[in-house]
Amino acid sequence: MLLNERDFQFLLYEFLDTQALLERERYAEHDRAVFDATLTTARQVAAEFFAPHNHKGDHNEPTFDGERVSLIPETKAAWDAFANAGFLAAHHDFADGGLQLPEVLLRACMAYFNAANIATTGYPFLSIGAANLIKSFASSELQQRFLPAMFAGRFSGTMALTEPGQGSALGDLRTRAVPASDGSFRVFGQKMFISGGDHEMTENIVHLVLARIEGAPAGVKGISLFVVPKFNVNADGTVGPRNDVALAGLLHKMGYRNTTSTVLSFGERDGAVGYLVGEANKGLAYMFQMMNEARIGVGLGAASLAYQSFLHALDYARERPQGRLASCKDPLTRQVPIIEHADVRRMLLMQKAYAEGSMALCLYASSLVEDSHTGGTEQSRGDAAQLLDLLTPMVKTWPSRYGLMASDLGIQILGGAGYTREYPLEQLYRDNRLNPIHEGTESIQALDLLGRKLGLKGGRGYALFLEKVGYSLQQASSLDECAPLGQRLAQGLAVLQDVTASLQLQVAAHADLGLSNATAYLDLFGRVLVGWVWLRQAILAECALQRGVVGDEGDFYRGKLHTARYYMEWELAPLTGIAQLLCAGNSACHDMQGRWF
Amino acid sequence: MLLNERDFQFLLYEFLDTQALLERERYAEHDRAVFDATLTTARQVAAEFFAPHNHKGDHNEPTFDGERVSLIPETKAAWDAFANAGFLAAHHDFADGGLQLPEVLLRACMAYFNAANIATTGYPFLSIGAANLIKSFASSELQQRFLPAMFAGRFSGTMALTEPGQGSALGDLRTRAVPASDGSFRVFGQKMFISGGDHEMTENIVHLVLARIEGAPAGVKGISLFVVPKFNVNADGTVGPRNDVALAGLLHKMGYRNTTSTVLSFGERDGAVGYLVGEANKGLAYMFQMMNEARIGVGLGAASLAYQSFLHALDYARERPQGRLASCKDPLTRQVPIIEHADVRRMLLMQKAYAEGSMALCLYASSLVEDSHTGGTEQSRGDAAQLLDLLTPMVKTWPSRYGLMASDLGIQILGGAGYTREYPLEQLYRDNRLNPIHEGTESIQALDLLGRKLGLKGGRGYALFLEKVGYSLQQASSLDECAPLGQRLAQGLAVLQDVTASLQLQVAAHADLGLSNATAYLDLFGRVLVGWVWLRQAILAECALQRGVVGDEGDFYRGKLHTARYYMEWELAPLTGIAQLLCAGNSACHDMQGRWF
Repeated sequence: MLLNERDFQFLLYEFLDTQALLERERYAEHDRAVFDATLTTARQVAAEFFAPHNHKGDHNEPTFDGERVSLIPETKAAWDAFANAGFLAAHHDFADGGLQLPEVLLRACMAYFNAANIATTGYPFLSIGAANLIKSFASSELQQRFLPAMFAGRFSGTMALTEPGQGSALGDLRTRAVPASDGSFRVFGQKMFISGGDHEMTENIVHLVLARIEGAPAGVKGISLFVVPKFNVNADGTVGPRNDVALAGLLHKMGYRNTTSTVLSFGERDGAVGYLVGEANKGLAYMFQMMNEARIGVGLGAASLAYQSFLHALDYARERPQGRLASCKDPLTRQVPIIEHADVRRMLLMQKAYAEGSMALCLYASSLVEDSHTGGTEQSRGDAAQLLDLLTPMVKTWPSRYGLMASDLGIQILGGAGYTREYPLEQLYRDNRLNPIHEGTESIQALDLLGRKLGLKGGRGYALFLEKVGYSLQQASSLDECAPLGQRLAQGLAVLQDVTASLQLQVAAHADLGLSNATAYLDLFGRVLVGWVWLRQAILAECALQRGVVGDEGDFYRGKLHTARYYMEWELAPLTGIAQLLCAGNSACHDMQGRWF
Repeated sequence: MLLNERDFQFLLYEFLDTQALLERERYAEHDRAVFDATLTTARQVAAEFFAPHNHKGDHNEPTFDGERVSLIPETKAAWDAFANAGFLAAHHDFADGGLQLPEVLLRACMAYFNAANIATTGYPFLSIGAANLIKSFASSELQQRFLPAMFAGRFSGTMALTEPGQGSALGDLRTRAVPASDGSFRVFGQKMFISGGDHEMTENIVHLVLARIEGAPAGVKGISLFVVPKFNVNADGTVGPRNDVALAGLLHKMGYRNTTSTVLSFGERDGAVGYLVGEANKGLAYMFQMMNEARIGVGLGAASLAYQSFLHALDYARERPQGRLASCKDPLTRQVPIIEHADVRRMLLMQKAYAEGSMALCLYASSLVEDSHTGGTEQSRGDAAQLLDLLTPMVKTWPSRYGLMASDLGIQILGGAGYTREYPLEQLYRDNRLNPIHEGTESIQALDLLGRKLGLKGGRGYALFLEKVGYSLQQASSLDECAPLGQRLAQGLAVLQDVTASLQLQVAAHADLGLSNATAYLDLFGRVLVGWVWLRQAILAECALQRGVVGDEGDFYRGKLHTARYYMEWELAPLTGIAQLLCAGNSACHDMQGRWF
């Protein structure tokens, strides 16, 4: 059971207009059949090589004997299948050996891999990100040395940001880089929570390491980005001797277990050979470009796991007979499937709203990435980039919070069975629990939204968002069933606008106090944003129903419309109460003193 | 780190008047020193025999080789220490070998064991419950045969309700009992999710089994309760040959791992010898009396784990330096402990509100159990019983839902560290995840509240609740800091009253529709109830501060008062929006059709 094909067709070709990408020059050689075949391939590779060892990888996590890291062998088979299908380079140019496929389609493909086995998918996910960084910012010499092997799957990659002493505060990192006479650097320091940081699946591992060149400014302005391979690579691309990068140990996680999480030591002997990417002291800017896309990836991962939790719980709820409705007092009647109980339907509705809403949101964000790269005009590319910049904190956190709730609800729907490892729900939850943490915690995203993103480019992203929601509200107003949904969303939007205006003044007046409720604001913004995502789905659904679709198709659209109704009625209901606190500048969290706890 | 002693003194002797129990005849031989020594003993035994293997038991769960169940040996040492300290019989009469100690004090003791190791505590917890059932309802002959060994810890006990085919729907259970010529019965059937259902720590295991005597009515009215021991017990109390009870297998849980969760087969050969407890067909009523107390126990377990999650996160947040406040732009300044970040304080405040609020709620409920047994007048005993009956669904579910959130927030505060098994947070979460499920899921509790409890005895419990909250609101109104908190709670209470009146009419008019939002109602009631619990704590705190307490004591009370402020402002904020949906009889969940998913 991997995602819902019908929904993906809806999301890609109705909710989004992926077909229209074929008109862009970059995709002129493709057609819809190529897109469909790509998605089919992803689904097949995911089903054949990733899903079967999802539970096994959880149960047999990577081990380190002091010399070597061992993974279950299915992991490498999955890596190879992913690489052989061309997914490691799929968005790159034909000229570079890529398939020149659009971002939004490939994100949908990644959703299938995530759904099948998010831990094993961690390896290609990180490798793609590392290669993107090299492709975007490294010299052509570095590109030639590393990229062909990374695209082919002979080398994998990592993102080495976090250190034991600084966690989320990247500006304080202490890993240092010393210039060497040949133009390379010697890197010294320790990195922590480096996913995929060691294993033997590939000939080499290419670490993208943030470090401070000796003498560079303190804080975020003195951070540079380096390529530091596990094995040195000769100029001709062949693998040389071991670099001075050592695995200090593995971390043992709650979930996501088949992805090694490592502590890496650079320069325990004479310094790890590293190559500067781009210019000195611009490393954080480079990394952030990458992290923004990685953040959509985290949202997508959360959405994928939420989606699986929903489908498994739905399947169970349809099959499992238990109890009777309150109105039935006769114990001799048959038990009903638990989906007949309203409270189980409530939980399934929440799951559907969270899972499908998250997936739609992440694919929408991916379409903005696409538009920011290949949109037809500079204006359209710029607009897509501004809007994406604004929305990224919600795209990362909303699925991570609510998708996790969908996984939690999946356990609850199954009850005792959901709590056992004999069913997949509890692993889905444990895997999903990472998503509110990595690539910037929820707190960090909230500060980014309120303290930075809202005001970028004169608030252009926010203005675009209001404009787009306004357009959907107008569409909804002429439809019978969507009109009241639009009215509820319009109320939510008005609340969001009031709160936004108030908080911007508060932040300007007193940064610490003004930002102290940033996470509540992030949540409020996310709820309205996903309300819009659901309204758009509802509009499409009502139009389809007006066209007279029936049977399974009718049920599909009716389900979209009804879930949108549930969302507008229940998920927007708490906004007003919270908004009053935000507008009043509630200081309960700010005022609390550490010694009072 | 086990709970907070200071808070327990506050809860037992300020928030509750445990001292006053000494005036009751049953406790006349005790004094405050005995109570304090009992709590100290619990803390010491928990710290010495339970806490040290909490992680080990999680990591080395029970195994079954087809013949025998193996547990880590520390489990039996803990069981013995618990029994030797007298806790298995502590609330029973001196005459029966008990310590005749009050319920509320012993629940506080149980909180220490839960906090130290909830999985190992499962064995005595269930055994105490099983012994209580025998003591309350079984013949004196059965009592004499089983209770001395159970009180001494030679026999343990279980509650065997659930079957594979019926889950929560007890009325459909199929285990059957056939009368034997000697007055005993032969029991046939399978039970599932039986905690502590097999192990070799004790000489015998006494299963309390729900089964249907052949020919009994269908549904809940035909269920009887049986004692079915693992080994037959001779009339003189010596252990005889193996009874026809077999372990069919162990279940493998997400957490709570050191408690065996079993599938048991009764009567695979010629029938398991069972002894009827009390009268035929009254088994469910007997079991429910027990389950109501077990439900407080589940709430208390959730509260204990939440409390540990809070204390661990607090400790980490005070020690861990990371980042700077938004107002500080100088990267050369020192990093601050993360407790200085407002969003970390928000999470800690939520944890404190949930953990301490849950604990206070559960100890309050325990004091009602106490009063229902030993209150001075029939009226006071009856009132305590009515109020307890009403509140039990919230006492079980509020800590299970919000305490679990406190555990979740603990992971989030630690970030990547919280996600690793190198820190205790993720296990606390996994252990705590069971609590919204066992002893009646949240859905079941919600139906119980709205469909049954509200209307019992003409709504006497509800009237008592309103009266008690009204009294606290009046107290608050004359205090400077509590007055505005009381006003917010009064608004919440008014909302609750409106919703309650509306839903009772809705349920009367259309049971299925009226009950379809029962869980949202349960949550709303729980929020108001815990608001009252926090207001009462705040009133005590403000009075203490008025008396001029300073230093650590001042901080303690200031923390209580500020947490109450946080709670009233933030946790009650969403009520109005949800109440509107409830009063309007929102039918989104009721109307959803299975085929639309």
